[in-house]
Amino acid sequence: MDSRFQQEIEQLRLTLLHMAALAERSLSTAIRSFFERDVELARQVIAGDHEINLLEIDIDKRSLRLLALEQPMARDLRFIVGCMRISIDLERVGDQAVNIAQRAVFLSKRPPLPPLPAMEQLADTALDMLMSVIQALIHESIQEANDVCHMDDTADELNVTVLRNLLDYMVKEVPAVERAVETIIAARCLERAADQATNIAESVIFIVRGVNIKHGCEE
Amino acid sequence: MDSRFQQEIEQLRLTLLHMAALAERSLSTAIRSFFERDVELARQVIAGDHEINLLEIDIDKRSLRLLALEQPMARDLRFIVGCMRISIDLERVGDQAVNIAQRAVFLSKRPPLPPLPAMEQLADTALDMLMSVIQALIHESIQEANDVCHMDDTADELNVTVLRNLLDYMVKEVPAVERAVETIIAARCLERAADQATNIAESVIFIVRGVNIKHGCEE
Repeated sequence: MDSRFQQEIEQLRLTLLHMAALAERSLSTAIRSFFERDVELARQVIAGDHEINLLEIDIDKRSLRLLALEQPMARDLRFIVGCMRISIDLERVGDQAVNIAQRAVFLSKRPPLPPLPAMEQLADTALDMLMSVIQALIHESIQEANDVCHMDDTADELNVTVLRNLLDYMVKEVPAVERAVETIIAARCLERAADQATNIAESVIFIVRGVNIKHGCEE
Repeated sequence: MDSRFQQEIEQLRLTLLHMAALAERSLSTAIRSFFERDVELARQVIAGDHEINLLEIDIDKRSLRLLALEQPMARDLRFIVGCMRISIDLERVGDQAVNIAQRAVFLSKRPPLPPLPAMEQLADTALDMLMSVIQALIHESIQEANDVCHMDDTADELNVTVLRNLLDYMVKEVPAVERAVETIIAARCLERAADQATNIAESVIFIVRGVNIKHGCEE
């Protein structure tokens, strides 16, 4: 019974890591489609979201079964609850990727805006945070999870920079207004993906240490 | 033991309903601050978010204790897991309210844009969805929860209408570009609050019927 339980916990862990890998690929592909103006890549992201959604449902089912059939204690309980939370955030990373891919489809068919270094840095930061938090999850590393939390301010600042740059640009280039707004929306999606990576980092810390650090270490 | 457990479940329910009432008040106050251009109301929303965040942590703690100390079965288990999920969504409704209030502070100090009927309808729809889903939660009503799910398309469409209207306006009124972009961001926050109400409706259905209807009834 106990080893059966541990097998199911391990299966839950593998399913979550599979979902994390898909979400990471979806975000990185969406970012490539955006900067390379590649409609085909964008369509792959949009088509692939269904699989991520199904994995969220699968993780929910596995977690509930474990909670219902066994009586998990302490660390196992936190792991199961943590998996449910992380899968919600990964599913939302997938949604941000789809949203970015939709902007990419729109923008690829229109004249390009001038390069926006802050937008590229924001994309790098968001993707770096997601990749790092998956490593933190694999290694169950508090240190790596904390590093991700500390990167979130950078993402917020870069998003503000993109917004400022594009507002300035729109005033000078009125025909570019719609393209600029679509880019502002894509930047907000990147910033939100960074938020979701931060949420996942908080869940990793919760699993390992049993401490809730949501909302800036309020406890 | 059993009655103690039922007392704790009831306490969890009351805490969740308290959190729901605060989130609803926060969203409705943010909407008023936005349309009435009232900086003082907006500041109340921003200051009040901390209490909503603390309730999320409280609900997490209560839920985990119930999962760890008792061995809840079937309906009770779904209720506890459902409460954890709903509290995550309510906290995010609070975040949207803060975001709208921040736009209200910015916009109140600048000349008003022309009236946007679609924006007012979007605000009404989002708030109506949130109020309705809280009623669905109180009554544990599948019918009321389903009604909320069906309103989500309306919110999406109204958000697109606001975006279209403001893009047209910006092209004609270049000095209004920044105010229009801030309004587009506020509209997206309303649309996301509507999404979160839909998520909560799905959690209500999960609690009552034990069926996962996420991602359009995939199972």
